[in-house]
Amino acid sequence: MIQRAFQVVARCGQQGALLRAPCILPRLNPASAFGSSTDSLVSRFCPETTDLKDYALPNASWCPDMLSLYQEYLEKTKSDGWIKLPSFKSNREHIQGLQLPSGLAVASDKDDCRIFTRCIQVEGRGYEYVIFFHPSKKKSVCLFQPGPYLEGPPGFAHGGSLAAMMDETFSKTAYLAGEGLLTLSLNIRFKNLIPVGSLAVLNVDVEKIEDQKLYISCVTQSRDEQTVYAKSSGIFLQLQLEKESSQQ
Amino acid sequence: MIQRAFQVVARCGQQGALLRAPCILPRLNPASAFGSSTDSLVSRFCPETTDLKDYALPNASWCPDMLSLYQEYLEKTKSDGWIKLPSFKSNREHIQGLQLPSGLAVASDKDDCRIFTRCIQVEGRGYEYVIFFHPSKKKSVCLFQPGPYLEGPPGFAHGGSLAAMMDETFSKTAYLAGEGLLTLSLNIRFKNLIPVGSLAVLNVDVEKIEDQKLYISCVTQSRDEQTVYAKSSGIFLQLQLEKESSQQ
Repeated sequence: MIQRAFQVVARCGQQGALLRAPCILPRLNPASAFGSSTDSLVSRFCPETTDLKDYALPNASWCPDMLSLYQEYLEKTKSDGWIKLPSFKSNREHIQGLQLPSGLAVASDKDDCRIFTRCIQVEGRGYEYVIFFHPSKKKSVCLFQPGPYLEGPPGFAHGGSLAAMMDETFSKTAYLAGEGLLTLSLNIRFKNLIPVGSLAVLNVDVEKIEDQKLYISCVTQSRDEQTVYAKSSGIFLQLQLEKESSQQ
Repeated sequence: MIQRAFQVVARCGQQGALLRAPCILPRLNPASAFGSSTDSLVSRFCPETTDLKDYALPNASWCPDMLSLYQEYLEKTKSDGWIKLPSFKSNREHIQGLQLPSGLAVASDKDDCRIFTRCIQVEGRGYEYVIFFHPSKKKSVCLFQPGPYLEGPPGFAHGGSLAAMMDETFSKTAYLAGEGLLTLSLNIRFKNLIPVGSLAVLNVDVEKIEDQKLYISCVTQSRDEQTVYAKSSGIFLQLQLEKESSQQ
């Protein structure tokens, strides 16, 4: 344990930016799978069979643009290397078999938790989204349809709902592309308001991985690419994962 | 109408930053109350009597820290110039009597809309928050307690939920301090994770108002100020409001 703690301190000391990084830094496990390949991360993240409900599937609330672009990317999963990410009610489900570093786990009622972007379960009212990821290109595309419970200005999505959608898409991308676990920064320039009920497409790229940090950029726009809703970037910190559990 | 449109274009042309600003810029009303005093904005924003439910009131889910700091600021509303802002289900209620510029209003079902930060109505599960505003200091304080439906890493608030809380607090502050209506940018540096169910305090300052833009900064920390959760800044665009309606 002392050795692990020392490694954390040493790691922080090596990087100025991390001196002010999260204090709740988990204890690192020297025997963990740090440096896991993207393929192995993806295969554990996307179980072939599961009883968990996948919320990233079409429902009656999806607008025609969202449905057709979903079908388009689904086709690309068959031949073009894209992967459709499942989306469960909680991150606790996503990390089954992966186990977050122990410092990130606290005791709380597992049954009553929801990942923020699945907080509203009535179809079409809150977040409707699906993320596709391309392992070798280190790109993601998120199809996002904000519902009327995500309102800011009347008739338009709250800027914060888009910020959260970005953070969530960045998080999953950073995790799969390089074990990025913690958001260090998020910068957003808003260009246009997204009408409630319409489709916004987040095009996400991992720009580089350097000094244990992933640099991610995103352009959010309408399907026809004629309207840019926002441009954003984020930096994520790589953290070692605990050993794979025996559950899978 | 042509004159109004011209004014918008001219305004954009004057400011480089606005050349890439929202295309859904509303038509400006030359006869509007642009330049309203903070006092008049606050008095219209905080009706003395209303039938609308105010969600920014204590309930059984509030943790002791949240309750006691709420009481502390409530005392300051009596003698120190602070104002407790009401928080209704939708921004449509907030702007009664103010009317957003016409370009920002679209036809949609009024009865089925919620402001994003009040999207979850079960007490304690989603956003619990209350904002206090000081007109002459141009400061705000938001007491924020994230519930288990706002989860990111197990046991901690999603970074996006804090981003949205910032954007919402910034929005209300920008509006009351100087008719700031649209978020142009939001920059966040995350320092520590916020445990679900605990209190985070957002300390918000309007740094300056220049070239029709409000520059806002925020430090989010624990009540004892020993843990900084995030530092952030935002820029908001001032927009002319339509004339006050006769409803109030």
